[in-house]
Amino acid sequence: MTTPAPAAAAVPGTLGVAVVGYSFMGKAHSNAWRNVNAFYPTPRVTQQLLVGRDATQVDDAAARFGWAESSTDWREMLERDDIHIVDICAPGHLHAELAIAALEADKHVIVEKPLANSVAEAELMVAAAVAARSRGVQSMVGFNYRRLPALALARTLISDGRVGDVRQIRVSYLQDWLADERAAMSWRLRKASAGSGALGDLASHAVDQVAFLLGDPVASVSGTVNTFVTERPGPAGLEQVTVDDAAWATLRLASGAVASLEVSRFATGRKNSLQIEIYGSRGGLRFDLEHLNELQYFDSGTPAELQGYSKILVTEPSHPYLGAWWPAGHTLGWDHTFTSQAADFLTAIDSGTPTSPSFEDGLATQRVLAAVEASAAQAGTAVAPA
Amino acid sequence: MTTPAPAAAAVPGTLGVAVVGYSFMGKAHSNAWRNVNAFYPTPRVTQQLLVGRDATQVDDAAARFGWAESSTDWREMLERDDIHIVDICAPGHLHAELAIAALEADKHVIVEKPLANSVAEAELMVAAAVAARSRGVQSMVGFNYRRLPALALARTLISDGRVGDVRQIRVSYLQDWLADERAAMSWRLRKASAGSGALGDLASHAVDQVAFLLGDPVASVSGTVNTFVTERPGPAGLEQVTVDDAAWATLRLASGAVASLEVSRFATGRKNSLQIEIYGSRGGLRFDLEHLNELQYFDSGTPAELQGYSKILVTEPSHPYLGAWWPAGHTLGWDHTFTSQAADFLTAIDSGTPTSPSFEDGLATQRVLAAVEASAAQAGTAVAPA
Amino acid sequence: MTTPAPAAAAVPGTLGVAVVGYSFMGKAHSNAWRNVNAFYPTPRVTQQLLVGRDATQVDDAAARFGWAESSTDWREMLERDDIHIVDICAPGHLHAELAIAALEADKHVIVEKPLANSVAEAELMVAAAVAARSRGVQSMVGFNYRRLPALALARTLISDGRVGDVRQIRVSYLQDWLADERAAMSWRLRKASAGSGALGDLASHAVDQVAFLLGDPVASVSGTVNTFVTERPGPAGLEQVTVDDAAWATLRLASGAVASLEVSRFATGRKNSLQIEIYGSRGGLRFDLEHLNELQYFDSGTPAELQGYSKILVTEPSHPYLGAWWPAGHTLGWDHTFTSQAADFLTAIDSGTPTSPSFEDGLATQRVLAAVEASAAQAGTAVAPA
Amino acid sequence: MTTPAPAAAAVPGTLGVAVVGYSFMGKAHSNAWRNVNAFYPTPRVTQQLLVGRDATQVDDAAARFGWAESSTDWREMLERDDIHIVDICAPGHLHAELAIAALEADKHVIVEKPLANSVAEAELMVAAAVAARSRGVQSMVGFNYRRLPALALARTLISDGRVGDVRQIRVSYLQDWLADERAAMSWRLRKASAGSGALGDLASHAVDQVAFLLGDPVASVSGTVNTFVTERPGPAGLEQVTVDDAAWATLRLASGAVASLEVSRFATGRKNSLQIEIYGSRGGLRFDLEHLNELQYFDSGTPAELQGYSKILVTEPSHPYLGAWWPAGHTLGWDHTFTSQAADFLTAIDSGTPTSPSFEDGLATQRVLAAVEASAAQAGTAVAPA
Repeated sequence: MTTPAPAAAAVPGTLGVAVVGYSFMGKAHSNAWRNVNAFYPTPRVTQQLLVGRDATQVDDAAARFGWAESSTDWREMLERDDIHIVDICAPGHLHAELAIAALEADKHVIVEKPLANSVAEAELMVAAAVAARSRGVQSMVGFNYRRLPALALARTLISDGRVGDVRQIRVSYLQDWLADERAAMSWRLRKASAGSGALGDLASHAVDQVAFLLGDPVASVSGTVNTFVTERPGPAGLEQVTVDDAAWATLRLASGAVASLEVSRFATGRKNSLQIEIYGSRGGLRFDLEHLNELQYFDSGTPAELQGYSKILVTEPSHPYLGAWWPAGHTLGWDHTFTSQAADFLTAIDSGTPTSPSFEDGLATQRVLAAVEASAAQAGTAVAPA
Repeated sequence: MTTPAPAAAAVPGTLGVAVVGYSFMGKAHSNAWRNVNAFYPTPRVTQQLLVGRDATQVDDAAARFGWAESSTDWREMLERDDIHIVDICAPGHLHAELAIAALEADKHVIVEKPLANSVAEAELMVAAAVAARSRGVQSMVGFNYRRLPALALARTLISDGRVGDVRQIRVSYLQDWLADERAAMSWRLRKASAGSGALGDLASHAVDQVAFLLGDPVASVSGTVNTFVTERPGPAGLEQVTVDDAAWATLRLASGAVASLEVSRFATGRKNSLQIEIYGSRGGLRFDLEHLNELQYFDSGTPAELQGYSKILVTEPSHPYLGAWWPAGHTLGWDHTFTSQAADFLTAIDSGTPTSPSFEDGLATQRVLAAVEASAAQAGTAVAPA
Repeated sequence: MTTPAPAAAAVPGTLGVAVVGYSFMGKAHSNAWRNVNAFYPTPRVTQQLLVGRDATQVDDAAARFGWAESSTDWREMLERDDIHIVDICAPGHLHAELAIAALEADKHVIVEKPLANSVAEAELMVAAAVAARSRGVQSMVGFNYRRLPALALARTLISDGRVGDVRQIRVSYLQDWLADERAAMSWRLRKASAGSGALGDLASHAVDQVAFLLGDPVASVSGTVNTFVTERPGPAGLEQVTVDDAAWATLRLASGAVASLEVSRFATGRKNSLQIEIYGSRGGLRFDLEHLNELQYFDSGTPAELQGYSKILVTEPSHPYLGAWWPAGHTLGWDHTFTSQAADFLTAIDSGTPTSPSFEDGLATQRVLAAVEASAAQAGTAVAPA
Repeated sequence: MTTPAPAAAAVPGTLGVAVVGYSFMGKAHSNAWRNVNAFYPTPRVTQQLLVGRDATQVDDAAARFGWAESSTDWREMLERDDIHIVDICAPGHLHAELAIAALEADKHVIVEKPLANSVAEAELMVAAAVAARSRGVQSMVGFNYRRLPALALARTLISDGRVGDVRQIRVSYLQDWLADERAAMSWRLRKASAGSGALGDLASHAVDQVAFLLGDPVASVSGTVNTFVTERPGPAGLEQVTVDDAAWATLRLASGAVASLEVSRFATGRKNSLQIEIYGSRGGLRFDLEHLNELQYFDSGTPAELQGYSKILVTEPSHPYLGAWWPAGHTLGWDHTFTSQAADFLTAIDSGTPTSPSFEDGLATQRVLAAVEASAAQAGTAVAPA
């Protein structure tokens, strides 16, 4: 099943990596492993193995993406001594099985977000991660936007007290690829395969950012979901859409702060707009993924006649992650987050320090998403995540 | 009580106007009556009477604002034949009494928003308006943002089908004047005087816009409210804040569309930001009151590679209201909405056509606000406005 | 010739005003005089006389705009004791004659910009203004953008040293009403009537702002002009365009700073975009007339990781002119500048303090514009204004 | 001199690449060669050799950047059969010597911009490129911004007639790293090493874009340059700055269009702002490198009340280059331009089609820059590039 490539031999003294999946996320994660050593002073890696279902396609992808070998059998990577890191970009319903097996095989594991399709699966994964951690095996869930320099800067500003006590948070993640009611049915619109719709796909990022930026647990959730177009053309005629197109929630945080959440695949003209607004007693912050190199900051301490949101171009060497890349003023793109994520994971492996976000963090997000669904099922009545 | 000014005699053939109130709103409405005939070909008006509580202050304001006379007795205006229009800018708890009395005296009545402090009061006002209407007496509630050219244009685009079927609406009205926890107690923060906080003050505009733009009744409401700072320094020490600082709601509309609503006086750095986003099957719209001369429009019918939100500078002669003002490219400000509102009211009086928004419209908004409070009292469980 | 209106009698103790012109600028200046006392604590004025060429039209305009009387004979206003202020909105080639006559009749004179169509005319006007000033008679040229709160704030920030030493300035004024090559011929496109094209109309504002903001005289000018569409349809067939469609210049200022200037009526999609950028040793400023309530400020003293242009919403009570208008967060429009200009002129009349901009300031601008034309005639070779 | 790396053997059937230089540009070009095959279906490459002056540093850089070998002797690459492409990122004064030698050795050559430090050098390089081209050897100059999807889209829109006849162009490239007068002396501020200042560094990009977007030769140039801070602290005390800090020019194009140009290292708060505005008879375009994923387009054919600049997020699969990268809505960064540039060069090598920009294009830009200096030396008098 394995297709040896010319440079198949593992490079001594490096960490061998295997990625499972070769489509969108597999391509993005491959890009990260191919480039991480060029930018970050982390342990060196070898792109050892790309795993996928279709032999021809995975072989072709391996050649293009820089992998030494490919395989259609994911169990192979667990048995090899030259694989130290397993990076799971397979569909969500496979996360638990693969991650748990890899952790038990003492591989460091990174799982693309969201952690799992259900709280139950996520809990099993956390148990495996806790056990592995005691053996020095690391694990992480791939909420890549934690590595956006602008959001990493936002987090620092908040923890440094530059916005004061945070009271109100607005997070939305808006896309529009379903706005056309003639758009076709797909696995993403079936509950069996996708678990949920905008909720798992988009709200997971939003909820993770609330946790990342504020570190303030969600105490209760009132939410609702909606499916605007309930039938779509499938291969065998019109088919029922069984996931949400959009979701809304109000999250009360332990501190007393309140976060509103809105996600949608029907927001016509919004292509990939994760927007975050943080309002505090001493300042405010604003971010939009469509301008990912920018953070807007309002400092209430500025004299009244000069106050206003500053548009910070987050491309200075003193900004998070930027020192690894280019001189001041040179913008990054979406994919750089994965390279930085790989670097952070390598550093955590090397130093034994906690990962961020851990599987526990991923489980917490999962619980909030489940609470949105639970509240929605009760006409919006607030429930506590559990 | 009356202070005759030099030109106190009513001008024959004009409509005499009386305004009640001379502070913020009284100043804005006075400005409208002073200027309406210079811009709009409406019936001519005479600024006859300014009514207020403090004789010295109302007399001074009348002189500055261009009124012929002033009075401290609001009943006077009901008895005079040279007063045809009564414009009520008094505090909300006086709206019902004054408006009903004026309507019964056959005066055309315009009431500053919101219509009343309670649904019960609003219902009485509607009854009086209906009765007066049968006698040819007009009434209107002053949601002045209906006269923003950009929002009037938005409404036309929606009714012309240029955004297709509307599915998702986002409306927020964010201010920050309470973000400083040391800001003082005031009548606006006491339930007895203000009725509610951000809800009545800000959400009323937001809810009215949903009605104005879409004409799609609210079927159910899930909401919550919050008071972030519960005590503030008053004249006699710390005092309890008894209204909401912020409110959130999800509105399900009769058509199946869903609107989210968020209003706050704690949104640090947002000075007067009423934001509206409309997402439909054929296009999208965006608006922010802080850029009130602009409307952003996304047309899904544009070729894919050219699609994007167009920032329309709503200052062309072909745009709503603009023909009355300046040549293309010359922006209007916040106060021009009141002049256009006065013009529309005069036209309705002259032609006998329905006013917009009517007292009925004002009552409908009141019912939605009451539903937010009712839902909030039940942990967010959805309720129908009634 | 005079059409007495009902309230023709002058109001004792007020300053009587006459405006010459009733089209675009006459309407804007009338609006200013009608409203100035409602907002500013200046001497009180009476809208006494509107002067124009067409008896019917000026009479109608006077009624709409609030003037007590109208006249078709501009000399009448010079002879009347109840006229104290003459405001000249007539076409440019009449400025010199009217202004000089009015000053000699001891009327305070405000002239719409630009001061005149030529340096020679402007010099005569300055002579008359100097002579009148010695008799306590004031004069001003109406560069209304000096009264934009955002630009008045910019000036204060510069003079307070908040941008440090200014080195580089970029000023452009872009419109697009000639971009359509089929747009018709008009008096504005004939040198005989208009003097120049974009240069006199748009560059005059730009040059005045350089003077206003920096107070740094122009030492030399290199420039060029262009006419993109040289023939346009006139009433009798195609006609030659004899003014510039666009102009460019580099201005070296006495301090060593350099300003670039670009004005155009061909900038497709720019409706009324006066843009100003100021770059100094300690900060930067940016402004666009299409967002006239905003000023952007960059403070080099901010810590590097927080630096960025702040978008200041110039609507706080502490901002220039704003105290006269509405509470914080309520935006002004284009026409408010004229009301503030009238207030400033009344204050100068009342207090005897210097006007801004004076006729001398208007002449200085005229000399810079003439230098652009002189340099353009010499293939861009730099010349000193004279 | 050569340091063999583990995988030093050339990969058969691939094109071997050598890069000269390992600092900023060497890092960016290495990144391109490392990634080009992962995204583009071009001929496959092998990262064979990194050349630099310091053996230790170049060896370390080679290891990090993915090169098989390193060398301190640039002549080595000319002699090896496994090197097919030479990519020159060495300082400008070395471009001519290296490029000519490489072309004569039948290596395909890409040279980082600007082509050379002088017109004379550039002419020699063009001669060598012409001769090599007749032998099937390709050459290109690395104006990477031609590969920005937004600017490639702009070019297509212009050539498709979507902006009509272009009349007016505004190009500026503004940075601020010299705004602090205490910033230190460096080789970039000495004429001997850098040739010029902002002119060669920034205006070269701007002039290349005018050529790329419009294909309209520059007929005459009026320009000026300035050095705001004439002395800066060097290793041995204050030293004279001998290059320009900023430059301005007006370019008359063959078609009659006029382009203005402004570049500066003193534009406080502008980090890397290449701005382009194109005004035509049927539309307009706007671009800013600080938002490199966006293009703004104004279509004069849209109904008047809907006209406005559309902000196109240039991340659709139908946009130039985007198909190679990520799904719709995922933004690229600055460095992706180099990968796309490498792909285009490989395609030209493979297909024998002309490169863009060719050395001839680079020479044309050089001539315009020389004309700016010549005009500046004559007080701005217009000169023709030659």
